[in-house]
Amino acid sequence: MKNLLAFKDLIDFELEAFNKSLLNKKPSSLYDPIKYTLDLGGKRMRPLLTLIACDLFDGNVSEAVKPALGLELFHNFTLLHDDIMDKAPLRRNQPTVHKKWNSDIAILSGDTMFVQSFQFVMQSPLINLKQVLDVFTKTAIEVCEGQQMDMDFESQSNVSIHQYIKMIGLKTSVLLAGSMKIGAIIGGAREEDAAHIYDFGKNLGIAFQLQDDILDVFGSSDKVGKQTGGDIVSNKKTYLLLKAMDMADRYKKEELQLWMHTTDVDPVEKVESVKAIYEYLGVKALAETEMQKFYEKSLLHLNEIPCNQNKKDQLKFFAENLMQRES
Amino acid sequence: MKNLLAFKDLIDFELEAFNKSLLNKKPSSLYDPIKYTLDLGGKRMRPLLTLIACDLFDGNVSEAVKPALGLELFHNFTLLHDDIMDKAPLRRNQPTVHKKWNSDIAILSGDTMFVQSFQFVMQSPLINLKQVLDVFTKTAIEVCEGQQMDMDFESQSNVSIHQYIKMIGLKTSVLLAGSMKIGAIIGGAREEDAAHIYDFGKNLGIAFQLQDDILDVFGSSDKVGKQTGGDIVSNKKTYLLLKAMDMADRYKKEELQLWMHTTDVDPVEKVESVKAIYEYLGVKALAETEMQKFYEKSLLHLNEIPCNQNKKDQLKFFAENLMQRES
Repeated sequence: MKNLLAFKDLIDFELEAFNKSLLNKKPSSLYDPIKYTLDLGGKRMRPLLTLIACDLFDGNVSEAVKPALGLELFHNFTLLHDDIMDKAPLRRNQPTVHKKWNSDIAILSGDTMFVQSFQFVMQSPLINLKQVLDVFTKTAIEVCEGQQMDMDFESQSNVSIHQYIKMIGLKTSVLLAGSMKIGAIIGGAREEDAAHIYDFGKNLGIAFQLQDDILDVFGSSDKVGKQTGGDIVSNKKTYLLLKAMDMADRYKKEELQLWMHTTDVDPVEKVESVKAIYEYLGVKALAETEMQKFYEKSLLHLNEIPCNQNKKDQLKFFAENLMQRES
Repeated sequence: MKNLLAFKDLIDFELEAFNKSLLNKKPSSLYDPIKYTLDLGGKRMRPLLTLIACDLFDGNVSEAVKPALGLELFHNFTLLHDDIMDKAPLRRNQPTVHKKWNSDIAILSGDTMFVQSFQFVMQSPLINLKQVLDVFTKTAIEVCEGQQMDMDFESQSNVSIHQYIKMIGLKTSVLLAGSMKIGAIIGGAREEDAAHIYDFGKNLGIAFQLQDDILDVFGSSDKVGKQTGGDIVSNKKTYLLLKAMDMADRYKKEELQLWMHTTDVDPVEKVESVKAIYEYLGVKALAETEMQKFYEKSLLHLNEIPCNQNKKDQLKFFAENLMQRES
């Protein structure tokens, strides 16, 4: 796994340089929250996937580093804005930007980060520039669509599992898929192989989000880095809740709905009670099965790509690791 | 002024086509506010300036139409987000998006419009693409910086006229300047001429914003399309207020500060009273002189450009018109 560590170093080095460049920028009220957001850390999964995908096709990884960074910045921009909309108080155990500063600053710092992400993606080799920008902007639009669907679900009583999978496909997965496709394009992949790597990323991303849903309820607060049970407290229509509503008999359904519609309730009690219903109905195992299904589908696409087996194994290792962050 | 009308038609045609394309896009909760924003109309000043600048250098105007539209979309995106931050209830006599829907939707529709603006700007001829994107992203960042400075001024007691001019230069003028520079680049302008057209736009933009400050207080609500005196009600540090604070003696300064710091005051009474102080101090005439200064500076840059006199006159005519929207 030597390459993977080297790739991570490349990204960290570039991110650090970028972060330093923000230090004396004015107005500091605009740039401090960007610096703060990047300092919170993260797995840098998207830029890593870009570099891995570029390398998979024997591309020159150094040409993909700046665009990769652009994808990380874009991801962080979406977190800034999503946290406002989701009213999230914490991100990686630290106050979110709209809590530490205010919503206006979170909107505008986010917008600025968004432009900066373009400035990095634009540093793709000129020969790939148009194609890379097409993937990037299409992805960015879809991420917005996914977030909007997610918000729409809040007031929608009849969300289906199918719609939910579509939503997380847009909100989470296309960015992983797009990050990989951009790496593949810069790496010189054939069109059909770039499509396979996209589908690999898309399915992996859906598996990843399903795992996120599970961790939000069944993970430990320390490791996940945000409030556990936050989805339950906010009645978020996750795979677990939708499946539970599908599975529940009349009485369990009423119980669930009572928890969802009662305001002025102790959040800890609510989380524990809904969690107990989930356990009673066995929806955790069902979510895990669904997650596994998408994970395996992603590997099928990876297998279709005719490339160095070692490199393919490395990508599989990365994906496996991702799927086992905490069970 | 045949060209000007033809240019406006080109833009309206493209905007209409784009607007129609939004009609069936899902989720409609994301795309309806974009459609609504574009349907509010507007002078389409920025795309017009792009086409005029392209034509000034005998460029192929049809190559600049899509990027021009991108600049209009970018402008509208900034309005969406600014209106949230400024808590503006009206835009062109209609409810703002965050009032008609909500802030979350205004944030996200704005983000989407932002990506769409990139998608249009990206349609510049490949030979100019990198240069156009450099101008566009630099401009976009500066617009964010200007908006942040504007917000910072709210809680800052010692804003100077110099800082104020810097702020409006970023918040308003660089986009006019950038729109023209992009048109000039696509039109094949030499570097020094593209710089002159940029400076023309920048100075014109500052003049334009100073006029906006004047109109907000002394214009009529119907023609301006938003609440008159809104800047006074919100204690906005405009050129008029800053100049008035500079000019006022101790008593007038205290009177002004009393109006600014008293909450629970009748807005109509406040506007009338502060307006009376402005009139007493003669700051309207001073603002007009300052505006004229920047306007004339802009024309000096225009004169430096060696191009067809007729076309230059046309641009002057456009600028003059801009400066006389309502006195």
